[in-house]
Amino acid sequence: MLIVGEKLNSSLKGIEEAVRKRDGLFIQNLAKRQIEAGANALDVNVGTSLASEDEDMRWMVKTIQQVVDCPLLIDSPNPRALRAGLEECKGRAIINSITAERKRMEKVLPLAVEFKCGIVALTMDEKGIPKGVEERMKIAESLISILTRKGISLSDIYIDPMVTSIATESSSAKVTFETTRRIMSSFKGIHTICGLSNISFGLPKRRLLNQTFFVMAICSGMDSFILDPLDRRLMSLLVASRALLGEDEYCADYIKAFRQGRI
Amino acid sequence: MLIVGEKLNSSLKGIEEAVRKRDGLFIQNLAKRQIEAGANALDVNVGTSLASEDEDMRWMVKTIQQVVDCPLLIDSPNPRALRAGLEECKGRAIINSITAERKRMEKVLPLAVEFKCGIVALTMDEKGIPKGVEERMKIAESLISILTRKGISLSDIYIDPMVTSIATESSSAKVTFETTRRIMSSFKGIHTICGLSNISFGLPKRRLLNQTFFVMAICSGMDSFILDPLDRRLMSLLVASRALLGEDEYCADYIKAFRQGRI
Repeated sequence: MLIVGEKLNSSLKGIEEAVRKRDGLFIQNLAKRQIEAGANALDVNVGTSLASEDEDMRWMVKTIQQVVDCPLLIDSPNPRALRAGLEECKGRAIINSITAERKRMEKVLPLAVEFKCGIVALTMDEKGIPKGVEERMKIAESLISILTRKGISLSDIYIDPMVTSIATESSSAKVTFETTRRIMSSFKGIHTICGLSNISFGLPKRRLLNQTFFVMAICSGMDSFILDPLDRRLMSLLVASRALLGEDEYCADYIKAFRQGRI
Repeated sequence: MLIVGEKLNSSLKGIEEAVRKRDGLFIQNLAKRQIEAGANALDVNVGTSLASEDEDMRWMVKTIQQVVDCPLLIDSPNPRALRAGLEECKGRAIINSITAERKRMEKVLPLAVEFKCGIVALTMDEKGIPKGVEERMKIAESLISILTRKGISLSDIYIDPMVTSIATESSSAKVTFETTRRIMSSFKGIHTICGLSNISFGLPKRRLLNQTFFVMAICSGMDSFILDPLDRRLMSLLVASRALLGEDEYCADYIKAFRQGRI
């Protein structure tokens, strides 16, 4: 499973300032802490600094790579910032993200081809996020068809079935689970990915909902998550989920995590 | 969903003594506390007192019914104790349990027909608990066929796919989930049920595994559980799961549980 640390995002507290001041130690510390807590990839987003986004992205990627060696999700809708991050990235890179919107597709797809990297594809188009499973499957199938025709392999594609809050649409989580199950069974080798926090927007005790949603999404076959790896409870549920799904032979990782006091 | 409180079981601390001393207040208090915590049915088991099991069962059912009005699971392999409990039961009763073992079937099945009650059916036979999904499905199908031919409706049948520990068999939870999904999609209106604690036998941090297993089982379609309703974390996950699966319109129960400080 790909567990992507979400905390290197300039919309989160402290990051924007650290980027502006080129506080490399702050950024590197947060990168290391996320990996130590169990993330095996990091999302990098400097979207709040519009004017300098590409230079900031370049600096961030360079800075992070000095201390950790893991896949990086270069997170921006801006093709120039994406190119800057991809050019700096020495290891595995994943573009976050493309959609079925024609303009975004035209500008981002050539980067994925040029850099032979992974790509997150959101099931949304010019009309926004569709409500049901069928409409999402239609967009997912169209995205997969376009990407694979350009030579991108299924194992480089991460479909995000777009999580919306259950506060406004009570079928929202079920739609995510069903879309995930259908994508994973229809396209062998492909990945599905999502962030956790949208599901609980507008509701109290959001962490409880996010945690429960996380376990259900894993159970539905989702194999990649963008989350806060410093949330100890979330990481405990991940270790337990892997043991329950038979992905942890003899529960060896589970017992190790217990002995190390991580769960 | 049927949430069965498991605590009125003479193998648990304090119960055997309370039964022996006919301490009705102790039993009634535990019955009420389980219902207040969110259980909507209660399991009743006095299996430790072999010589007096039927009289003890009779007293327990009478005692419990004086303070709560909910379905009772009359829990015994002993046909005499089952009959005693069923005779006393004024409301909905569910026999816990029958198996595909010939002798048990011969003695318990007539009680289910006579009392027109629900029945828990375990997917095991003379050879014990089978390993895989296929063998469990075979036993489940045979049980369902025998029960329905006797006039028992699908909505009165609770199939227990027999949870075993992941410590000894790493595919154990997956087998439970897959068997549940297949039973629920093949027999519309039927129920699936399980206890939570066997899954983690022999492992540390058992509550974490039980909780994670619980959420995954709900997500797989299981609709009945025998559990400890006084485990607050478990009940919080239940409330969150119902909201996520669209079974709680406008998240009304979830918000109510939050306001009452229950989650």
